[in-house]
Parts: sequence; structure tokens; C-alpha cells
Amino acid sequence: MFRITSVQNPRVKEAARLRDRRQREKQRRIIIDGARELIRAIGAGVRPVEVFVCRPLCQGEEARRVLEILPQTGTELMEVTEAVFEKVAFGNRGEGVVAVAETPAADLEGIVLPGNPLAAVLEGVEKPGNVGAVLRSADGAGVSAVIVADAQSDLYNPNAIRASLGTIFTMPVAEATAADTLAWLRRQGLRIFTARVDGAVPYTEADFRGPAAIVLGSESRGLTDVWRAPGVTALRLPMRGAADSLNVSATAAVLFYEALRQRGW
Amino acid sequence: MFRITSVQNPRVKEAARLRDRRQREKQRRIIIDGARELIRAIGAGVRPVEVFVCRPLCQGEEARRVLEILPQTGTELMEVTEAVFEKVAFGNRGEGVVAVAETPAADLEGIVLPGNPLAAVLEGVEKPGNVGAVLRSADGAGVSAVIVADAQSDLYNPNAIRASLGTIFTMPVAEATAADTLAWLRRQGLRIFTARVDGAVPYTEADFRGPAAIVLGSESRGLTDVWRAPGVTALRLPMRGAADSLNVSATAAVLFYEALRQRGW
Repeated sequence: MFRITSVQNPRVKEAARLRDRRQREKQRRIIIDGARELIRAIGAGVRPVEVFVCRPLCQGEEARRVLEILPQTGTELMEVTEAVFEKVAFGNRGEGVVAVAETPAADLEGIVLPGNPLAAVLEGVEKPGNVGAVLRSADGAGVSAVIVADAQSDLYNPNAIRASLGTIFTMPVAEATAADTLAWLRRQGLRIFTARVDGAVPYTEADFRGPAAIVLGSESRGLTDVWRAPGVTALRLPMRGAADSLNVSATAAVLFYEALRQRGW
Repeated sequence: MFRITSVQNPRVKEAARLRDRRQREKQRRIIIDGARELIRAIGAGVRPVEVFVCRPLCQGEEARRVLEILPQTGTELMEVTEAVFEKVAFGNRGEGVVAVAETPAADLEGIVLPGNPLAAVLEGVEKPGNVGAVLRSADGAGVSAVIVADAQSDLYNPNAIRASLGTIFTMPVAEATAADTLAWLRRQGLRIFTARVDGAVPYTEADFRGPAAIVLGSESRGLTDVWRAPGVTALRLPMRGAADSLNVSATAAVLFYEALRQRGW
């Protein structure tokens, strides 16, 4: 157990740099805020490299649980002052725990689909928080895997981890190009449904009961033409009011839960 | 047409203060960022008191449209420099247009429900962005009215306006206490459905075809015991993964669209 009291400590500085995407790519590490998120990461096999703990801030039940679990993982624990914690946590409420871990592998090849899979694809989404929100809904609806295609941010952006409540670690996830994703979905034999403002088919008329993929685009630009391809069915949600679309995470939740409803629970 | 070049201009300072809730309550005014939001507000009968326009930033189609509409409203237009606009817009991308308007009335008594209404209630929600996201989904699903009960923030928080894409102005909305809201729903003869993690009834088994209300609670604490009352049916969404709940705006979207599906479109 180390004790760090200086914000100038090099390990503190190195961890704080992981808030920056280029540093995450360079160090090949990610930063995980929050006790619940860390518990889910550890449960999913992620081994933290180091964990910064600020005992006075570890008030929640989950923070206490993470302190019980951590010694079993062989992770290096660093007790830090509130000032040091502040620097590592970067203004995020971390409930007294911030971890550094190696970036998990997230290749299409690593995804093993179950029988009768339901996959989700997010193309070109701008905000990491939306990626996280979609992951959380996918987790809830029992989606088999989420593929982030041509993302504007890296998959393990701290805001994506946070908004996913750590389900980014428990769900099968991958990063790929849109073209590779489309080819992969076809190889897996999935029926491909896209969500488009001008989609021809009302989403409740789609048959989600067989192997299927639901593909969502960016909030500002929608889906690219990669997804105007043979065998791809464009769905629309009814829009009864003033706005012409839902938020991407709302669209995702509606489609995932319609698929789950059709599949039975 | 005024021209303002100083960030010290008293009207600029007064408008910038509207980012603060107490000032909104004191001045009884709100601040509206964005061209699309302003177009929807004007279309819904909101009359801006003053509008700050930064021409070099008015590049979008909607910004141009708002500049066409505004002269017809008799609103005072103030041309401002980018530095002044920055101060009023407070870091929000306002597409060159920020308006000040009187706070619209938002009482339960002002809400007139259509035949076979579907109302939505949000109790104690913490984040204004979530209020806005729920409003946007309610607008899409054709929800008749949204009531914000015992809110942690004021209804017309700039982030709520923004996340709603301005549908906060086009939807019938009200602020009230939870107790008053429950009494009002009963007077309107609505069947009341709450969303609870431990709800007894799967949401797809609820009958949303008649006059109904869908009640959602805060992300951290759920619904209060006001809603454990006779005649209130607690619904749950199936949770198939690691997390035990969806984001409130995802829950809202799933329930609103399930109601719309049952009602037919």
C-alpha cells in the first residue's frame, strides 16, 4: 500500500493524463471512475494496474465492497489525499475510487455470439455519454453484443464508461469500421435493421424474433450510405410531435425493448 | 436594432445572469439557446423580450429562418459581437441566437387534455438534461402532457430547454408537487402506472389503451411513497444484464412507445 500526498507525484500525473484520448492510446490504458463501474470491470475479468483510493470519500456501500474485493486482485492500491484524488478524478464523482487498467481488447473477432443473437451497432456517434447510455440499455434488454463503428471518440472514453454504469465491461463490445461491421453482420447471418428518420418500415412491423442487428447513426448526421445496401431494412419510429427524431439513446432503448418484447421474456 | 459591442453592457449582464436559477425566478424570465429552440418557442406563442444575434455565427438554415421570423414578432433585436455573444451564450452552442423570454405559465390548471389522454409525470428528477430528454421522447410518442413534480431544478432550466430541442414549449407542461399531481391525475380519470425497479407487473402486460398516466422517478432514489397509493399499478422493465435499471429517459422512451404501439398509429 502506497500513500501519496502530493499532486506532483508522477503516477498521479500519469493517471490524470489518461483523461486525454491521445494519452489513452499512447499508454494503452484507460481510467475507470466509480466503485460500481470498477466492480463490474473486475467481475468481467479486467485487471486494474493501479487503484487510487481516498478513504474519506469511500462512504457508499459499493466503495466499501470494492475495497474488500481489490486485495484479491493483486492490484496496487494507492491511498491518496482528497487533493490528490481530485486531480486524478478530474471533477468526476468517483466515490473515492479511481482505477487505471489496460485497454481491453475490442475486436470483432473477439465477439462470440450466442444462439439467436441480437446485435447492436452504433455508427459515428459523437458523444461518449450517448455510447454509454446505449450500452446501458443494451445490457438491460439482453442485447448480445454492441459494435461501435467509425466512432468520433474512443470506446473507453471515461464518459462512456460512466454512462454505461460499467456495463461496457460486462457486455461483448467491439470497435470497427462501418464497412467491416456490415461484412461481419452478414457473415454472422443476421438480419440488418437500420433506424432512419425516413425509414420505410414502421419499427413495430419488423420481425426481430430471428438473428438480427439494430444499427443506429449519429445524432447530427444519421447513418452513412454504407447502410443503404441490399438486404438492409430501414425502420422508422413514429414521430407525433414537433421534433423529427428521438435522441439516439432513446431510439436504441425503444428498438431493443421492442425486440425483447417480440422475443418474449 | 441595437448594436452591443461591450461585454459590460447592462442588458448583456442581466441576460447572462439568467443562467442562474435564482435569477430566473427573480426576473421571472428564461433564456433560450439555439435557433431551432427559439423557432419552436415562437411557434408555440412564447414572445421573446429580447434576442441577441451574432450574425457571423448565424450560418445554419434554422438561424437564417429565425432571423426572418423575428421581425414579425416585434421583439427587440440586439446585434452583438462574438465576444458579447460568448458571454450571453455561456459556452452553449447557440448558433448565433440567444433569446430572453418571460417564464411561461406552467400550472396544472392550464393543462387541457385531449380525448383518451396519455400523460407523463417526472418526479424528483435531478438533471435538467434528463427532463429535456424525456420531453423530447414524449413529444415523439404523442404524449398529451408532461408534469414535472417536486423537481430538483426549475422546469425551464437552459439544459432542459436544450435537451428537449424546444419541445418544452410545444408540449403542454406543468410543475406541481407530487401530491397535487396525483390528485389531478385522479380527477382527470387516468389510470396511473409507475415505473419501479421492483414493479409487480411487466410493462408489456399493462393496458395503455385507455386514459393513462406514466410516472417516472429520480435516477438515484426512484419514486417516493406518494405513488404507493390505491389504484396505482407499479410496472417493471425486464433487466437482462448487469445493471438493475435503465436511465430515466430510456425508461420513458420505452414506456411511451409501448403505449403508442398499443394505441395504434
